[in-house]
Amino acid sequence: MIRKEKIEELKTYIEELKAMKCTKNKTPKKGFLTIEYYQCTLNNGHTIVREKLVKGEKDGSAVIILPITKEGEVILSVEPRVFTKETVDVGLPAGYIEGNECAVDAARRELLEETGYAVKEENMRYLGSFYQDQGCSGALNEYFIAFDCKPYGCQKLDKDEYIKYFICTFNEMLELLQSGYIKGLNSAFVIEKAKEYVYERQRDRRI
Amino acid sequence: MIRKEKIEELKTYIEELKAMKCTKNKTPKKGFLTIEYYQCTLNNGHTIVREKLVKGEKDGSAVIILPITKEGEVILSVEPRVFTKETVDVGLPAGYIEGNECAVDAARRELLEETGYAVKEENMRYLGSFYQDQGCSGALNEYFIAFDCKPYGCQKLDKDEYIKYFICTFNEMLELLQSGYIKGLNSAFVIEKAKEYVYERQRDRRI
Repeated sequence: MIRKEKIEELKTYIEELKAMKCTKNKTPKKGFLTIEYYQCTLNNGHTIVREKLVKGEKDGSAVIILPITKEGEVILSVEPRVFTKETVDVGLPAGYIEGNECAVDAARRELLEETGYAVKEENMRYLGSFYQDQGCSGALNEYFIAFDCKPYGCQKLDKDEYIKYFICTFNEMLELLQSGYIKGLNSAFVIEKAKEYVYERQRDRRI
Repeated sequence: MIRKEKIEELKTYIEELKAMKCTKNKTPKKGFLTIEYYQCTLNNGHTIVREKLVKGEKDGSAVIILPITKEGEVILSVEPRVFTKETVDVGLPAGYIEGNECAVDAARRELLEETGYAVKEENMRYLGSFYQDQGCSGALNEYFIAFDCKPYGCQKLDKDEYIKYFICTFNEMLELLQSGYIKGLNSAFVIEKAKEYVYERQRDRRI
């Protein structure tokens, strides 16, 4: 069972970040998201029409990180997700890969910005890369576990970003997934993938 | 090891569906994808601006199905994915939930349309629902395993849809995931989640 004081702490964050009112605006001149239109000829001779979602003139490839502290606890992000039923999600730290950054660097930067925790490059485990929504996007996400994370500094959030970080045990996180607090596909995937790695380290008493 | 004749069969499908040329068009009047703009007031008093991807005037919630035949083999879909590096993906049958359809009905319909295989409702196992890309979308995907699928009729594809279906063993599918043929996040997630169910039925010799 998840500790009573932890679930209370989490509920405070969720309450604070809830969207109370969402108003639809008229289309501005140019936003972060744009749509591109393509006509593609396949090797079988047929032509198909497809639409592509572009994020900030890029594919929108992201990194998703499961951070585990030296004490063996995990660090989650609580964040407004205004288009979901709950309007707030509990999930893993994540963010877009910027400029020419490699995925590992992006993952370490996002972890530091969202939580203030740092991880050494040699403690990162790569879990694979998969397309987010390949029917309409080229976003290729990269997934990591970050072991032995240590507090390093303050959160560094963008003007429009409100993130609370939340620390609990690996098993408590599994409970949050099971009970519907963690609702994002990227987070759910990493947690499923990470189980074997984490159980192995728990058996070896390395975390 | 995946059977030699199966990998040859798969490569034929991939070759046939490859995109040979993709040309970017000017923006048409109205496509399937649109962007909406919102201003949201959080419970903490701050206001944030978010953009939402809309698919055909809906959220774009989809169903993803791992179909397993009476003989214990899996059925995969091979499909053009023109925005990926490979331009073709091997993955699980999937599609958008239409109108007022419930998720189970959508899953059974998509399976039938993409592969010609039918599944009884009592043989569907629900694996959960997760948001596809909650930062910019309300799409809530629903995930299923379909056991005891049987051939029922022909594929029924849309005008713009070219899908080959491909049958192999569960372990061969795991190899395709491992070796990078299966690159979509939805498929990868279902396969991870499904392992325990499938191993259990294999132990019981039910498949």
